[in-house]
Amino acid sequence: MKTASICTIGDEILIGQIIDTNTAAIARELNLAGIKVAFTLSISDNGNEIEEKLAECLEKTDIVIVTGGLGPTKDDITKSVLKKLSGSERYVENAEQLHVIREILGRRNIEISDINRAQSLVPDKCGIIVNENGTAPCLFFRKEGSILFSLPGVPYEAIAAIPKVISIIRQEYNIESICHRTINTFGIAESVLAKKIEKWEDSLPEGFKLAYLPNLIYGVKLRLSHYGGDNPQYLKTIEKLFGEIEPLLGDAIYGYEEDTLQSVIGKLLSAEVKTLSVAESCTGGTISSLITSVPGCSVYYKGSVTSYSNLVKTGVLGVRQETIDKYGAVSRECVEEMAQGVRKLMKTDFSVATSGIAGPGGGTEDKPVGLVWIAVSSENGTVSGNFIFGSQRKQNIERFAANALNMLRLEIIRTQKK
Amino acid sequence: MKTASICTIGDEILIGQIIDTNTAAIARELNLAGIKVAFTLSISDNGNEIEEKLAECLEKTDIVIVTGGLGPTKDDITKSVLKKLSGSERYVENAEQLHVIREILGRRNIEISDINRAQSLVPDKCGIIVNENGTAPCLFFRKEGSILFSLPGVPYEAIAAIPKVISIIRQEYNIESICHRTINTFGIAESVLAKKIEKWEDSLPEGFKLAYLPNLIYGVKLRLSHYGGDNPQYLKTIEKLFGEIEPLLGDAIYGYEEDTLQSVIGKLLSAEVKTLSVAESCTGGTISSLITSVPGCSVYYKGSVTSYSNLVKTGVLGVRQETIDKYGAVSRECVEEMAQGVRKLMKTDFSVATSGIAGPGGGTEDKPVGLVWIAVSSENGTVSGNFIFGSQRKQNIERFAANALNMLRLEIIRTQKK
Repeated sequence: MKTASICTIGDEILIGQIIDTNTAAIARELNLAGIKVAFTLSISDNGNEIEEKLAECLEKTDIVIVTGGLGPTKDDITKSVLKKLSGSERYVENAEQLHVIREILGRRNIEISDINRAQSLVPDKCGIIVNENGTAPCLFFRKEGSILFSLPGVPYEAIAAIPKVISIIRQEYNIESICHRTINTFGIAESVLAKKIEKWEDSLPEGFKLAYLPNLIYGVKLRLSHYGGDNPQYLKTIEKLFGEIEPLLGDAIYGYEEDTLQSVIGKLLSAEVKTLSVAESCTGGTISSLITSVPGCSVYYKGSVTSYSNLVKTGVLGVRQETIDKYGAVSRECVEEMAQGVRKLMKTDFSVATSGIAGPGGGTEDKPVGLVWIAVSSENGTVSGNFIFGSQRKQNIERFAANALNMLRLEIIRTQKK
Repeated sequence: MKTASICTIGDEILIGQIIDTNTAAIARELNLAGIKVAFTLSISDNGNEIEEKLAECLEKTDIVIVTGGLGPTKDDITKSVLKKLSGSERYVENAEQLHVIREILGRRNIEISDINRAQSLVPDKCGIIVNENGTAPCLFFRKEGSILFSLPGVPYEAIAAIPKVISIIRQEYNIESICHRTINTFGIAESVLAKKIEKWEDSLPEGFKLAYLPNLIYGVKLRLSHYGGDNPQYLKTIEKLFGEIEPLLGDAIYGYEEDTLQSVIGKLLSAEVKTLSVAESCTGGTISSLITSVPGCSVYYKGSVTSYSNLVKTGVLGVRQETIDKYGAVSRECVEEMAQGVRKLMKTDFSVATSGIAGPGGGTEDKPVGLVWIAVSSENGTVSGNFIFGSQRKQNIERFAANALNMLRLEIIRTQKK
């Protein structure tokens, strides 16, 4: 199997000012193309370091993908290292990239500067992939049996280049595929899950490997892999093996592969031609933004009210003032009225509502930071429940939202079964 | 200056199923503590590979931080490598961690299993930092003049351990600090910014280094650094140098360091005792969730309506049906009525509204995917404008939201000046 390494360049990663999302995006695509990513690394904007590490990557793996260090500004020094490593003697202007640069700047009414123009200069021994989305072209060259690609650091530009990179790799090598499938679960702790499927896992046939992918917010994914070869039998075996544990996990399985709670909810609602609205307090718009992250959601999604202030709970959603006075805004009674209120306001079949204390402030002994009440309303009535999580605001909001989506999913399924 | 490397372990990173956020969080804290992160890497869940790479990290850097590979499930093999590398002979049960394990499982009404119990076993030559937030303890040991820390892979657990890790490092080494400050700008392209400050940049005093940190969504940050030594004069010089470019950048500077558009808006509104509401169409709750990501936002934030359906625009926000019929939902007229409608509905001083086409579907020749109309309403009237971005749904939503926040910020500032 061909191996790859991914190297991101930039002090901004090493000082932690940005999260590197390119590596995951590139690793994913390489993996799907049947290339094994052996390792990834991030290094500094330092010429000697870049040269040394890239030479090491070229020695250890068949394919090297570099991102970053190609921008127009003075801290970008990767291109001169690529000139040296590729054995180039000089820079040549690439007319196609220059054309794109002119177009991009023209759209923004910016005059082309020397700095911009310099971006179209490429080392003469490098191939180029025109960057349609930015000013720095993608470069590649072969060295000692390996191939190196250099992509821009801006995630959108790097990711847009990947299909062309894969196609060049496919031409270069004869590639074996990796076979894997993923089951996505919500609501079962990793260790409980492990115990449930322990016997099954211990008797997996040779060559098949199980991985647990736990996520604090979105539950545990189980990935079963077989490395090496394009035999359709491996996939059939994985599906048969998964078929054995599905009954053990039941409704905790919300989907497979790229399914998310919100995409699954969209499929369930679309299939039943049902509509949805949302009322959020502590989650502040997060549930709505997750639902609208799914393309085509306008078919089933009508909208939401974020009722951060109690006056919006009463004035817009119709929660009774006496409910808030008697039970507080973070209560079963209030969240049920929020769910009922938004369903009526937006005339939908289903609605989900949250009210809780995300923190860091606002907790009491009775109602600590991390407490959330969630209600789901439909023609079958209103169900509600609560959870208590931790002290971290961001995590709490995300976990509240994920659990609200899961409660909604289970209620749609329960309604279907009736 | 002491150097560090950060090594994440786990196939889930190498196949791109998760984005590694631990590295950035850890790098950031090390950097603030005056430790230079020389490189970071991600490797596979393979015993030999872990051993080889960790030995290399220990050789090349003073401090090695490892995350991942300590969970309760069978694909976690890091601990046995740590046992070997630390020269340990056996595992010993750690009573404190076992206590935490029992407590965590108890809160979830889960009985302790052998798998859980095994997590409290630690190699006898390793120090431990009790993990209060999870079941796997943090381990550390010294080897050949370097120190290695092993943290859990779950981000929240890893990040919670960092202050204790830093404190142990401080005891171990006498650490010089790095001095840097950041200016955050919005709305000026990187190359234009570079041209604006070219002369200033070319004449920076020796030892000071400027970095551009461009972000497609949130603009360009400028970071000026001085490495080495704890001299307060460096900071004064950085502030003086920044003072020279501030007039060149004007309102494009929205803040410094960790300021975000939404945190700055919060400060501006709090200072003026003004309130805010939001009406979202294409951004689907993203603006509201950004605003509520700021702790304490309930002082100025009342709430929002996500009017994904036109019936919600007319029925809840009071947009006139004839406006939608005549101009369409994505128009200056509609978005202005949305802003005015939500401001009236929620009785706030300011409001911001968006209506656009995030894609991938829904575009026309006149109104392409990537078009957004934004309006800001206040007692001084309603201002509006539009932008056209790209074809990527997620990016479009984020850019629409960021530009809406920026338009709101500029309008609050303009109102202040009156």
